[in-house]
Amino acid sequence: MKVAVVMGSKSDYPKLEEGINLLERFGVEVVVRALSAHRTPKQLTQFLEEIENDTDVIIGAAGKAAHLPGVIASHTLIPVIGLPIKSSTMDGLDSLLSIVQMPKGIPVATVTIDLGLNAALLALQMMSLKYPKIKEDLTLYREEMAQKVLEEDKNLRG
Amino acid sequence: MKVAVVMGSKSDYPKLEEGINLLERFGVEVVVRALSAHRTPKQLTQFLEEIENDTDVIIGAAGKAAHLPGVIASHTLIPVIGLPIKSSTMDGLDSLLSIVQMPKGIPVATVTIDLGLNAALLALQMMSLKYPKIKEDLTLYREEMAQKVLEEDKNLRG
Amino acid sequence: MKVAVVMGSKSDYPKLEEGINLLERFGVEVVVRALSAHRTPKQLTQFLEEIENDTDVIIGAAGKAAHLPGVIASHTLIPVIGLPIKSSTMDGLDSLLSIVQMPKGIPVATVTIDLGLNAALLALQMMSLKYPKIKEDLTLYREEMAQKVLEEDKNLRG
Amino acid sequence: MKVAVVMGSKSDYPKLEEGINLLERFGVEVVVRALSAHRTPKQLTQFLEEIENDTDVIIGAAGKAAHLPGVIASHTLIPVIGLPIKSSTMDGLDSLLSIVQMPKGIPVATVTIDLGLNAALLALQMMSLKYPKIKEDLTLYREEMAQKVLEEDKNLRG
Amino acid sequence: MKVAVVMGSKSDYPKLEEGINLLERFGVEVVVRALSAHRTPKQLTQFLEEIENDTDVIIGAAGKAAHLPGVIASHTLIPVIGLPIKSSTMDGLDSLLSIVQMPKGIPVATVTIDLGLNAALLALQMMSLKYPKIKEDLTLYREEMAQKVLEEDKNLRG
Amino acid sequence: MKVAVVMGSKSDYPKLEEGINLLERFGVEVVVRALSAHRTPKQLTQFLEEIENDTDVIIGAAGKAAHLPGVIASHTLIPVIGLPIKSSTMDGLDSLLSIVQMPKGIPVATVTIDLGLNAALLALQMMSLKYPKIKEDLTLYREEMAQKVLEEDKNLRG
Amino acid sequence: MKVAVVMGSKSDYPKLEEGINLLERFGVEVVVRALSAHRTPKQLTQFLEEIENDTDVIIGAAGKAAHLPGVIASHTLIPVIGLPIKSSTMDGLDSLLSIVQMPKGIPVATVTIDLGLNAALLALQMMSLKYPKIKEDLTLYREEMAQKVLEEDKNLRG
Amino acid sequence: MKVAVVMGSKSDYPKLEEGINLLERFGVEVVVRALSAHRTPKQLTQFLEEIENDTDVIIGAAGKAAHLPGVIASHTLIPVIGLPIKSSTMDGLDSLLSIVQMPKGIPVATVTIDLGLNAALLALQMMSLKYPKIKEDLTLYREEMAQKVLEEDKNLRG
Repeated sequence: MKVAVVMGSKSDYPKLEEGINLLERFGVEVVVRALSAHRTPKQLTQFLEEIENDTDVIIGAAGKAAHLPGVIASHTLIPVIGLPIKSSTMDGLDSLLSIVQMPKGIPVATVTIDLGLNAALLALQMMSLKYPKIKEDLTLYREEMAQKVLEEDKNLRG
Repeated sequence: MKVAVVMGSKSDYPKLEEGINLLERFGVEVVVRALSAHRTPKQLTQFLEEIENDTDVIIGAAGKAAHLPGVIASHTLIPVIGLPIKSSTMDGLDSLLSIVQMPKGIPVATVTIDLGLNAALLALQMMSLKYPKIKEDLTLYREEMAQKVLEEDKNLRG
Repeated sequence: MKVAVVMGSKSDYPKLEEGINLLERFGVEVVVRALSAHRTPKQLTQFLEEIENDTDVIIGAAGKAAHLPGVIASHTLIPVIGLPIKSSTMDGLDSLLSIVQMPKGIPVATVTIDLGLNAALLALQMMSLKYPKIKEDLTLYREEMAQKVLEEDKNLRG
Repeated sequence: MKVAVVMGSKSDYPKLEEGINLLERFGVEVVVRALSAHRTPKQLTQFLEEIENDTDVIIGAAGKAAHLPGVIASHTLIPVIGLPIKSSTMDGLDSLLSIVQMPKGIPVATVTIDLGLNAALLALQMMSLKYPKIKEDLTLYREEMAQKVLEEDKNLRG
Repeated sequence: MKVAVVMGSKSDYPKLEEGINLLERFGVEVVVRALSAHRTPKQLTQFLEEIENDTDVIIGAAGKAAHLPGVIASHTLIPVIGLPIKSSTMDGLDSLLSIVQMPKGIPVATVTIDLGLNAALLALQMMSLKYPKIKEDLTLYREEMAQKVLEEDKNLRG
Repeated sequence: MKVAVVMGSKSDYPKLEEGINLLERFGVEVVVRALSAHRTPKQLTQFLEEIENDTDVIIGAAGKAAHLPGVIASHTLIPVIGLPIKSSTMDGLDSLLSIVQMPKGIPVATVTIDLGLNAALLALQMMSLKYPKIKEDLTLYREEMAQKVLEEDKNLRG
Repeated sequence: MKVAVVMGSKSDYPKLEEGINLLERFGVEVVVRALSAHRTPKQLTQFLEEIENDTDVIIGAAGKAAHLPGVIASHTLIPVIGLPIKSSTMDGLDSLLSIVQMPKGIPVATVTIDLGLNAALLALQMMSLKYPKIKEDLTLYREEMAQKVLEEDKNLRG
Repeated sequence: MKVAVVMGSKSDYPKLEEGINLLERFGVEVVVRALSAHRTPKQLTQFLEEIENDTDVIIGAAGKAAHLPGVIASHTLIPVIGLPIKSSTMDGLDSLLSIVQMPKGIPVATVTIDLGLNAALLALQMMSLKYPKIKEDLTLYREEMAQKVLEEDKNLRG
């Protein structure tokens, strides 16, 4: 079980941390890289070739004109999850549209702006097709999540 | 190999047709349903229970306040792909945001507005984790797609 | 006189507090719950069944892809008021569109982003159809509100 | 049982027709008026005074800087439903924001852009607080609506 | 020479202060009021009747669904300048559209979001049609303004 | 009584025609020019110098990055009304923001996208400060306008 | 003098035609290619290597998540002009943001949505740094353009 | 080698500083001016005439209705780079659209909002057509940039 997490800039890391921790908690090997589609295109392609045969899912996170997930998707058939990162202008709309509006033929599975946890959960759901153990763990995770909501609810009702 | 395609209204079908045909061409069994998250919530839940154990991926397509994919995702751990449909106002922005901006814990894999083919291709990429044959076929499909671009390019250069 | 206030996350509470206080000041019984349409769908449905027969109005508050009010509206005929909550990206536009753009047949009465007081006042106006006392109290409340504006105006003119 | 439907311009009528028919089918008396908040402010105020005592709900529909529902709401305590109408520019966003973003103290119950039927259904749900017969009829209407979806679904599955 | 400045809420005052000071510096009598189109509609209409015969221009400032300038414009033929105020959500877009997108027949002269000074300058330019002295003073003011830019420019070049 | 109407392109004329006719009906001399701020900057400046002393108001209409009204305003103290024209992309938002968001010191009186009539009416209201006859005529015009709405209303009630 | 024009899809050609004709009229050799950043990434890179040494400017045109110009810019130091193409949803905003919001270090010179002529003119202005003859021709072209505006203006004043 | 950098207001300087430093590091003479298209139109035109014959590229930076780069472009054939500056409202969208959506015939090479460095790099790429030395230095700069990304990447992988 292996997921590659690629971010366009190291400064995107805090948005990804919770998701990376979750993947590791599920026993997934996580390769974390900071590679830019535009500043290091060759190293990116080379990295994608290296991981082609032993990686289940790739998560690409980027801000502004966030080409990274789409560029990754154009070089591989491994499913690519795109995480739009909000930068200092345009409130996340630019990265969202740059990631989700991919042209015919090369989809990117886009998730909530800035929510690395959702990228990780989607990766796990994809992997559960192949690894039944993950489905069991996800079932527990959802129950846990529901319990937290219900506790919050209980506290609220006092 | 089984994919469920659920649309919020039968009128969304033309946006999905190309994708459904592709899935069938890849030998995937496709169950197509028109069920509304809001007008038929019980039948939707019942349908999801029926398919829980033999379905690999679910595609949910909807317009306006497009809750369908998110509501599906809240009832199952099968990966859910969301296809935003443009309706007569707001140019697709409403359905895009309603699908992609899911809260923490329940991701929906969102693809390009109105592009059913991309939803189908993403479903196939997810299934390729489990069915290696699909990966081979996707490799051929990508080559075919590239060939078409190159022929267009050749014609253009005349 | 009973209103149910459901929020998608406990963190939405500060946006609702002023409205809840107003409802209680008007003598309305208020049931406050933190239930997620996506993380606790069953508990939400169950709660809606419990309150079906003795509740006048339901207020649903949520951020991001704010499905909560619409999902509630799909399970009940009690009028549902939707309060969009601004989260850290998209400046409230995502929750507004996810709540107001409901499909044909299942309306949600949407009010100003982040303004819990307006949700409460709308609930009271709806209830005033049935409870004439509320209309009287609302008349006084409006006069009070006008007085505050006029005092501000007086101070301004110095 | 009486509903007033006020539109800013006669050209908005087609967006309202389906809703007006529904209200009449439910046995509600419907008063339909074309009055402008800006071009006929006095006649609007006068009309609101006339209907103050025998009207359950008011529906206000308008396009562009759609002040009509908010101006109505400032003159009455009858609940006001706002229907944003899409005009030739800005794709409905201007009327949506002008209607829903009401300031503290004067809510307007905003529904889907251009969807007069939802305005009518919300009016009926509000009136059902007072008239139990409407709730029964709405229950049947929802079942009918669900049946239509299920028939569409059946046709789709062939 | 008399200008009425009406704001929807006293909290809008800081956005107007610089403009009010400018008007006074030009020898214009300024009447400043905090009146809400929605919470004090009668007092607003009454105030407009009082100033109808001795006021040259009215400035209306408001946030959110900013109906105030349009409502003023519907009650008078005095030219009305609308100043959109940015509130805590939607970054000023809601008030801008609510003010500028007025329907056929009732224009509002809309200026830059949050820039009370521009509202004041536009008022002065309008009044200069009637009072030639203002045009002379505006000519000096523009020269002063240009001087400031040129000094900044000089400092920058060091 | 003289108004200059400048449009960035002859193709904007249909959006201005109704307003030009109204101005002429009110006895105003109208000078109509198609001059581009970008393609004919010198001719524009020259024209502005020619009309500086005998023109009451200038209307500038333009689409896309609509600099025309702002550039005019930077060369004159005559009040400038900006009419945003919707072009084939961005639904009018680009021209609206390019016209209304003028920097400190140089306001443009912006009106409804594509609504030349409102530009003309605002020009007349400004001129009424100087020419009392216009105010009388505007009073009649408003009554006429109200009558049309009331006739529409009468037909609707049928 | 050589310009490469690359479009993401042959269907973008009509938006580029006028610009290509202009370049040829100026005596520039134009290489026109339809290559997709996502469907034919290798052929695109190969093409860029071929033209690296004899091309002055590259124009990249694309719609939706328009990565093409940015991907080109990441592989070359030749200046890249990006032309956003409006597709069937989002009114051109998606391609504009995907092209212009490039990250630090890799700029794309973005021009007006759908306006291939402006891309060509900008290419000529860039080339005029190296080829003085182009500057002379551009001077004539601008005069011609101004003449057309002035003729339109003359006809209008008719 | 000479670049003129013009900003609409001295307060835009911090967004330009990094780019100005880069240009100087590349041995380019940089003329920095704070001139407003609207407040100092004559000084701006005069400055443009002065630099017409010895300047390679002009960078224009402005916020709000950012006319500066377009106005510059209308007075010269030197290529103009437009840098949109985010101001306190509208998150940079107003300046972006005001700069990029230039009408037919007068392009502005628009770059990322607030990213002065990209404006400088684009200027250098344009100048590299004429000065081969710049191309060499840009090649080194890109390698440096890639090295920084790879170091970040190395640190991340720990």
